[in-house]
Amino acid sequence: MPKLVDHDRRRSDIAAAARRVLSRDGIERLSVRNVAHEAGLSPGALRHYFPRHDDLVRFALRQFLDDLQARIAALDFPTDDLEAATLLVEQVLPLDKQRREDMEVWLGYTERARFDPVLHDMSLESQDALALLARSALARLDEGGALRDGLDLDIETDRLHALIDGLALHAYVHPERISGDQLRRVIRHHLGELVGD
Amino acid sequence: MPKLVDHDRRRSDIAAAARRVLSRDGIERLSVRNVAHEAGLSPGALRHYFPRHDDLVRFALRQFLDDLQARIAALDFPTDDLEAATLLVEQVLPLDKQRREDMEVWLGYTERARFDPVLHDMSLESQDALALLARSALARLDEGGALRDGLDLDIETDRLHALIDGLALHAYVHPERISGDQLRRVIRHHLGELVGD
Repeated sequence: MPKLVDHDRRRSDIAAAARRVLSRDGIERLSVRNVAHEAGLSPGALRHYFPRHDDLVRFALRQFLDDLQARIAALDFPTDDLEAATLLVEQVLPLDKQRREDMEVWLGYTERARFDPVLHDMSLESQDALALLARSALARLDEGGALRDGLDLDIETDRLHALIDGLALHAYVHPERISGDQLRRVIRHHLGELVGD
Repeated sequence: MPKLVDHDRRRSDIAAAARRVLSRDGIERLSVRNVAHEAGLSPGALRHYFPRHDDLVRFALRQFLDDLQARIAALDFPTDDLEAATLLVEQVLPLDKQRREDMEVWLGYTERARFDPVLHDMSLESQDALALLARSALARLDEGGALRDGLDLDIETDRLHALIDGLALHAYVHPERISGDQLRRVIRHHLGELVGD
């Protein structure tokens, strides 16, 4: 007999609905009511899965990080370490529609993180995830033996992480000011310097 | 006979009031009504100087950039080019209360710049001002003969500008994650690399 309600399936439908609300309408519209409407459920049914607004926000933003992780896992990385590290970093730059939507979500909750404890936690999680991505790009160069000797990986992680977010912010707010090619060139140049390219 | 109304003085009082509203309450509260109240004027008196809301926003944000410019002009720069360039960049990092307030204002209107033509223009002006600051820091190193040979100043300006804004964003949203000392260390390291320090 089939299950009357497939809870995993329903959670994933809610996740997809929350993701659409987040991208289309922004974090301030991410409410139980709006997500329920988007998912074709009653607010009561949605509260069965997410009793509090905060639970829904955490779930939606964690889903957002999971999606990014899944996209990265599905990439076909080139064997050249410098090209591979560059490709990894490019995943979090607003180089296409999907990544521009990600930026919109990210900037929206980052800006509100100072005043909202849940968004603050989630913003911390996403900063940690980005720092980890920066460190992974450096580790890729390091393990391949490409990285210059004597570099301090902590400081290089902070630097690359800040560079990524600064570029992403500039390209997102003023796409007319910096093109996708320029973004790629700056990242490629930065990583190239680290390997003494 | 003294002037009945000193218009320059009044404009500067309004500027100060707008600056306080902006820092304390955010860009969304920067209205003719609120600034008039803060300046102890009637909305009608304020409209004499700024007929439209947009004029007030432009004026307040331009004032914000002028204040930064004035703070930089008043600095006592060290003779060492690397130290001088570092000090210049530090002026736009959230290293004290004043600069954290600046960040709050900047992030608030940057986030809204995508949807508001006036904020978009002003955000473009402030991005240009920051790019100019990055270029000035590099020029300081270049003119002193400290800069490594063969660097592309355009790409280095984009890179330093993005690094500054990324660091500023990180330190502002999560001051517990990156200290003022770490900010300084990353900038000092970055500029040091450019001079082959």
